[in-house]
Amino acid sequence: MTDAAAAQAGARVYVGFRSPYSRLGLHVIARAGEGARVRAIAFTGPPEGMAFADPTANPAKRAYYVQDVARMTRRMGLPLARPDPFDPDYRLANRALAAAAADAKGFAFALAVSDLRWGEGRDISDPAVLARAAQEAGWTGFDAERISRDPEVSARLKAERALIEADGVFGVPFLVDAGEKFWGHDRIELWAEGV
Amino acid sequence: MTDAAAAQAGARVYVGFRSPYSRLGLHVIARAGEGARVRAIAFTGPPEGMAFADPTANPAKRAYYVQDVARMTRRMGLPLARPDPFDPDYRLANRALAAAAADAKGFAFALAVSDLRWGEGRDISDPAVLARAAQEAGWTGFDAERISRDPEVSARLKAERALIEADGVFGVPFLVDAGEKFWGHDRIELWAEGV
Repeated sequence: MTDAAAAQAGARVYVGFRSPYSRLGLHVIARAGEGARVRAIAFTGPPEGMAFADPTANPAKRAYYVQDVARMTRRMGLPLARPDPFDPDYRLANRALAAAAADAKGFAFALAVSDLRWGEGRDISDPAVLARAAQEAGWTGFDAERISRDPEVSARLKAERALIEADGVFGVPFLVDAGEKFWGHDRIELWAEGV
Repeated sequence: MTDAAAAQAGARVYVGFRSPYSRLGLHVIARAGEGARVRAIAFTGPPEGMAFADPTANPAKRAYYVQDVARMTRRMGLPLARPDPFDPDYRLANRALAAAAADAKGFAFALAVSDLRWGEGRDISDPAVLARAAQEAGWTGFDAERISRDPEVSARLKAERALIEADGVFGVPFLVDAGEKFWGHDRIELWAEGV
């Protein structure tokens, strides 16, 4: 993926299921009526060689986020639950997102998974939880066994790694549209005002 | 400074003259008509033992900030200039802010210094530039020689370090009001909506 190729890709939003702000960013896009146009891509980590600053590693920052996530989620009128476990294995969910995207259901699936995790506290490493998300997204192609092995899913994730590199994604949610970048659900609100 | 003492201090905003977002945060407060009520405090670094993530150390993040600072500054209708040098010695400016605050001119002085740096690109380690900021802020007490030695200024900065510790300030701008924390000029906009 070259920078020129990235420039020609359509609007895309990188989401981390770990992040409650990714969920809010998806809701901002959905409320703007742009969910069908924006490609949701799993953030599987920053570009090669770039350090990732885990916001929960710093106690003061973590305490701040607890306060801020509650405030911003309430502001959007959404329920909030603490996920249990807090850090499940995200690999199947990420692979499922790539598979859903191939069926043009990526955005809806990402939103449903995010709401199950952050709105209900569900364990999104559980295939049954992902199956429910697929159902809510109207995606009939979810099959945990297939998705965990499918080489096409692996190839898609690899291509998306190249997009992460080209776009220089260092945190989520991160929306790229026509060369302009929007980091954080609050910046995605600016984007939504402009589309 | 205990947490209880911090809880009883009035509204305060931590600003780093290095940060263009600190400048925007000060403008948000000023436009809300709250400048007289909010104490401006120089962010002289994070609490002891807390790592500070320099946003300019990561090339992708730096490129993003160049785009975002221009966008957000334009959005507020403010001029933007690249400071030269980009990283002057901030010590005199920080000491001057503490001295101005003792004369109840801290907020206005912080805003004037920020605008000279980020609106005109001035070198705020230059006493002549700080003298101009003092004049614009209506603060008659600026005297670079005195301020650079005054033990009362040193004592004030030390007390403010204790506030930084108690408030867990990890980045700027950072506003604390009645126990609620607002990090970033965009969150300060939320605070301004609510006051």
